[in-house]
Amino acid sequence: MLRFPLLAAGVLTANLAAADPLPSWNETQARDRIVTFVESVTDPESPDYVTPSDRIAVFDNDGTLWAEQPAYFQLFFAFDLLAELAAEDPSILSSDTLKAAAEGDLETVLKGGEEALIEVVNASHSGQSVDEFQTDVEEWLDASQHPDTGMAFDEMTYQPMVELLRYLRDEGFKTYIVSGGGIHFMRVFAEQAYGIPPEQILGTYGNSTYDVIDGVPTIVKAPGIAFVDDKEGKAINIDRIIGKRPIFAAGNSDGDFAMLEWTTSGQGPRFGLIVHHTDAEREWAYDRDSHIGRLANGLDKGPDMGWLIVDMAKDWSRVYTGR
Amino acid sequence: MLRFPLLAAGVLTANLAAADPLPSWNETQARDRIVTFVESVTDPESPDYVTPSDRIAVFDNDGTLWAEQPAYFQLFFAFDLLAELAAEDPSILSSDTLKAAAEGDLETVLKGGEEALIEVVNASHSGQSVDEFQTDVEEWLDASQHPDTGMAFDEMTYQPMVELLRYLRDEGFKTYIVSGGGIHFMRVFAEQAYGIPPEQILGTYGNSTYDVIDGVPTIVKAPGIAFVDDKEGKAINIDRIIGKRPIFAAGNSDGDFAMLEWTTSGQGPRFGLIVHHTDAEREWAYDRDSHIGRLANGLDKGPDMGWLIVDMAKDWSRVYTGR
Repeated sequence: MLRFPLLAAGVLTANLAAADPLPSWNETQARDRIVTFVESVTDPESPDYVTPSDRIAVFDNDGTLWAEQPAYFQLFFAFDLLAELAAEDPSILSSDTLKAAAEGDLETVLKGGEEALIEVVNASHSGQSVDEFQTDVEEWLDASQHPDTGMAFDEMTYQPMVELLRYLRDEGFKTYIVSGGGIHFMRVFAEQAYGIPPEQILGTYGNSTYDVIDGVPTIVKAPGIAFVDDKEGKAINIDRIIGKRPIFAAGNSDGDFAMLEWTTSGQGPRFGLIVHHTDAEREWAYDRDSHIGRLANGLDKGPDMGWLIVDMAKDWSRVYTGR
Repeated sequence: MLRFPLLAAGVLTANLAAADPLPSWNETQARDRIVTFVESVTDPESPDYVTPSDRIAVFDNDGTLWAEQPAYFQLFFAFDLLAELAAEDPSILSSDTLKAAAEGDLETVLKGGEEALIEVVNASHSGQSVDEFQTDVEEWLDASQHPDTGMAFDEMTYQPMVELLRYLRDEGFKTYIVSGGGIHFMRVFAEQAYGIPPEQILGTYGNSTYDVIDGVPTIVKAPGIAFVDDKEGKAINIDRIIGKRPIFAAGNSDGDFAMLEWTTSGQGPRFGLIVHHTDAEREWAYDRDSHIGRLANGLDKGPDMGWLIVDMAKDWSRVYTGR
């Protein structure tokens, strides 16, 4: 049964390999460094050769694979869902934070810090089955536009990074997302957007329960965050779930620092990549002072650790997949 | 790079398919039901055909893939490790439970219930880096014998189940362990014993920290159990980590009930399998009254739910991989 799909995959790989694998990357040093690394770990004659089962690559999502300004896209979803739920039952807006969220008042919610974000996520994301929740996410993605660009949120994925993911997979890498975003949220679009299946998506998750409801076994999303997949949590989650140290890691903020440090401090060839948001014209320009995706540690220490700092304005000929 | 391995895998699959995939299974109904199911979900002409990416199979470990009597093998490891640690620093045996454990007094520890087990695991499994811990497990597996059989613990894997895992993979399934055992413990031997790589092993895990120690980033095992992968926890962990409902689940105790129920209540073709320990001569015979691997719910409700109850004495021509 397995033979024909495998043969077909082989032919497909051969065709792709002949074409330029990274057409949306300019001919800069960034692109050269990526290609040189990939060639060195996949060439059996190279001293840096890495066996395919160890070619693990991990990617942050928000700000690394798709945009994250003016706020994480999942927050827009939470606001919209909350407004919808409140239309049926206004009493769920039991605090000023929740009222602000349902009105789409981003500024007020962000002022409340992490506590406010957790409150919004709890109120909007719990009490549903995982299936119901994911149907909501799907419908929302189909119906919603980004407030500034007017694009669908899942068109605001970065074309150069989508190409990088595909290139790595074509070269025998297994690609993972390791993100502060929610697992159930990301799994709705990640396979189509990035070619990454549900079992290769690590992220933040809430509590959940297993209940047999009217005879139907159901996983229900419960209040409370069980694990925050950010900062040191990213390295811990990689150890828990993947159980191997990656050889390639990509991020864009200091929330990714530990993941890149953990990855690149392993023995043998390693690659760390930071997407630096330098492009105010085509996207957003932000780093040290941003309230979302703050990047300081990575800029200060990354180059000495050998990490590639991708200059979005200079290194990418195209930004979004959707335009 | 990918083409030749893929072609080789195709050829290998064709050769294996010609041989009997389940030589250690007798020609009974159990074997027939497994083969009929696998053929129906892999034949593109079948109404029950399942696309390869959805062919997820989950297996409990203790009592399903290897033996678990007179106690979980990981407990023997914890006892031995504790005795070794106490030889250097006797003060760590700060309770009667820990003293009993270091003396290998299984009965006393088991009398203390789950609390005692957690105390033993905390005292023996924490304070080390994951790397150090796994080196300990490896050395212990090489040096230790089962108290009753005298076999190495990792020779007490079940040959028929090892064949079943390989058969499923050859037919395009992705095989996972979903076990109450510890992830760091199981990952040491599971790839060699079962062909299951680290990233397909779900289990119980303790707290851990990410620390840079003398300049070296390290994952350290900390006291406290973070997640118990048993009962409802198995279904919850499958949802969290795999993110898809399996179509095949195998277990042996009521700790696996929720996992089998969750798996087989999905739409389309599903398979639930329970290993029933009926073979006092070649292994152990136990079910409803066992302190380890208790099986009552599964025997009472499993058949009506369409689950296959494997009669070890009758359905298996050979038990252990090691003899």
